[in-house]
Amino acid sequence: MLTTAEIQELVATRMSQMDWTKEPKDLYAPVEYVLSLGGKRLRPLLTLMACNVFCEEVEGALMPALAVEVFHNFTLLHDDVMDKAPIRRGKPTVHNKWNENVAILSGDAMLVKAYEFFAKMPEDKLSRSLTVFTQTALEVCEGQQYDMEFEHRNDVTEKEYLKMIRLKTAVLLAGALKIGAIIGGANDQDASRLYDFGINIGLAFQLKDDLLDVYGDAKTFGKQIGGDILCNKKTFLLINALRYADLQQRNELNHWLAATDYNPQEKIAAVTALYDATGVKFLTEQRMDQYLDKALQLLDELHRSERTSQLASLAQRLMNRTL
Amino acid sequence: MLTTAEIQELVATRMSQMDWTKEPKDLYAPVEYVLSLGGKRLRPLLTLMACNVFCEEVEGALMPALAVEVFHNFTLLHDDVMDKAPIRRGKPTVHNKWNENVAILSGDAMLVKAYEFFAKMPEDKLSRSLTVFTQTALEVCEGQQYDMEFEHRNDVTEKEYLKMIRLKTAVLLAGALKIGAIIGGANDQDASRLYDFGINIGLAFQLKDDLLDVYGDAKTFGKQIGGDILCNKKTFLLINALRYADLQQRNELNHWLAATDYNPQEKIAAVTALYDATGVKFLTEQRMDQYLDKALQLLDELHRSERTSQLASLAQRLMNRTL
Repeated sequence: MLTTAEIQELVATRMSQMDWTKEPKDLYAPVEYVLSLGGKRLRPLLTLMACNVFCEEVEGALMPALAVEVFHNFTLLHDDVMDKAPIRRGKPTVHNKWNENVAILSGDAMLVKAYEFFAKMPEDKLSRSLTVFTQTALEVCEGQQYDMEFEHRNDVTEKEYLKMIRLKTAVLLAGALKIGAIIGGANDQDASRLYDFGINIGLAFQLKDDLLDVYGDAKTFGKQIGGDILCNKKTFLLINALRYADLQQRNELNHWLAATDYNPQEKIAAVTALYDATGVKFLTEQRMDQYLDKALQLLDELHRSERTSQLASLAQRLMNRTL
Repeated sequence: MLTTAEIQELVATRMSQMDWTKEPKDLYAPVEYVLSLGGKRLRPLLTLMACNVFCEEVEGALMPALAVEVFHNFTLLHDDVMDKAPIRRGKPTVHNKWNENVAILSGDAMLVKAYEFFAKMPEDKLSRSLTVFTQTALEVCEGQQYDMEFEHRNDVTEKEYLKMIRLKTAVLLAGALKIGAIIGGANDQDASRLYDFGINIGLAFQLKDDLLDVYGDAKTFGKQIGGDILCNKKTFLLINALRYADLQQRNELNHWLAATDYNPQEKIAAVTALYDATGVKFLTEQRMDQYLDKALQLLDELHRSERTSQLASLAQRLMNRTL
C-alpha cells in the first residue's frame, strides 16, 4: 500500500509530465498556465487513495485521477471568467492575462482533455466510471449556476446553501473517490460509501473554507481575510447569522449588507463581531464536525481500517488546515 | 436498410423527446432553446447512415448520433459568445437572450451532456468510439482558435485556410461518420475510408458555404449575402483573389479591405466583381468538385455501392444546395 506522500509524489510527477506544447499555442498554453498555478491536488489524491483501498496496483486509476484534476481546474478557469476574477492563486487569471475568448475556448479544450485522460483506463471499468464522472461534471455546473443565482438573492436558506455547496464542491470529491473505488474493484455498496464519505468531507471542507475566510490567518490563508463579508456572499455563517440574530443584531447586519460607502476593515470587523455574538462561528464549527464524524463513520463501515486510516487522517487534516 | 428520410425522421423524433426541464432552469433552458432553433441535423444523419452501411440495426448509434449534434450546437453556442454574434438562425443568441455567463455555463453543461449521450452505446464499442469523439472535439476547438487568429491576420495562406476549415468543420462530419461505422461493426480500414469521405465532403461543404455567402440567393440563403466580404473574412475566395489578382486588381481589393467608411452594397458589388474577374469563383467551384470526386471515390472503395448510394446522393445534394 502506498503512503499519502508517495501518491502525492506520483500525482505531481505525472502532472509535470503532461505536454501542452501543441499548436495552436493560444489554445493550449493557457491550460498549461492554469495547471502550473498549483493547488493541493486533493482530487487526484482521493481517486488514487480510494483505488488503493481495494487494490494494491493504482496505475489504472492514474489517468482518471489526473482527468479529475484537469476538470477541476477547467471549472476554476470558467468560473473566474464568469466572476470576472482578476487573480487566482496570486497570479493573473487567464482572461486577464490573455483575453476572455481565449479563456472560454481553452476551458472548452480542457474539459475535452479531461475526458481524453479519463478514457485512458481499464476498458472494463470505463462505462461505469464514465457515468459517475459525467454525472458529477453536470452537477458541478448546476452548483455554479445556483451559486451565481444566490448572488442576486437575499433569502437563500441553509438548505439551499447546503445543496449548492454539495453540487459545486462536494460531489467532485465524492466522484473522485467513487471512480477510484470502481477502478480498484470495489462493489457498488462500498463505492457508494466512499462517495458519501466524499460528500460529507466536501461539505465540511466548504464550511471550513467559510470559516477560514473570516477567521483565517492572513499570513497563511493566501486570500484576503473577509473577502466573503465584503461581497455579501451568502455563506453558512451569514445565512445563520441572519436567522439567529436578535432584532438589533439583524438591523446592524442588514445595515452592513446594504452599505455602499464604507471602510472595508470596519465592515469586516463589525460583521465578524456579529458572527461571534450570534454564535454562528460555533454553530458552523459544530456542523463541520458533524459532517466529519459522519464521514469517518462511513469509512469504518468499509471494515478495512488498515487500508482507510490514511483517508481518515487526510479528512482530519483538511478540517484542521489553516489555509 | 433505412432511407435517408426515415433516418431524418428518427433523429427529429428523438431530438424532440430530449427532456431539458431539469433545474436549475437557467442552466438547461438555454440548451433546449439552442437545440430548438433547428438546423439540418446533418451530423447525426451521417452517424446513422454510416452505421447502416455495415449493420441493419442502427439503434446502438442513435444516442452517439444525438451526442454529436448536441456537441455541434455547443460549439455554435460558445462560438457566438466569442464572435459576439447577436443572431443565430434568425433568433437571438443565448448570450443575447440571457447573458454571457449563462451562455458560457450552459455551453459547458451541453458539452458534458454530449458525453453523457455518447456513452449510451454498446459497451464493447465505447472505448474506440470515445477516442474518435474526443480527438474530433479537440480539433474543433483548435479550428475555432485558428479561425479567431485569422481575423487579425492579412497573410493567411490557402494551406492554412484549408487546415483551419478541416479542423473547424470537416473533422466533425468525418468523426460523425467514423463513429457510426465503428458502432456498425466496420473494420479499421473501412472506418478510415468513411472518415476521409467526411473530410472531403466537409472541405467541399465549406467551400460551398464560401460561395453561397457571395453568390447565394438572398431569398433562400437565410443569411445576408456578402457578410464575409463586409467583415473581410479570409475565405478561399479572398485568399485566392489576393493571390491571382494583377497589380490593379490587388490595389482595388486592398482598398476595399482597408476601407472604413463605405457603402456596404458598393463594397459587396466591387469585391464580387473582383472575384469574377480573377477567376476565383471558378477556381473555388473546381476545388469543391475535386473534393466531392475524391469523397465519392472513397465511397466506391468500400465496395458496397448498394449500401452507400444514399451517402453519395447526400454528398451531391450538399454541394448543389442553394442554402
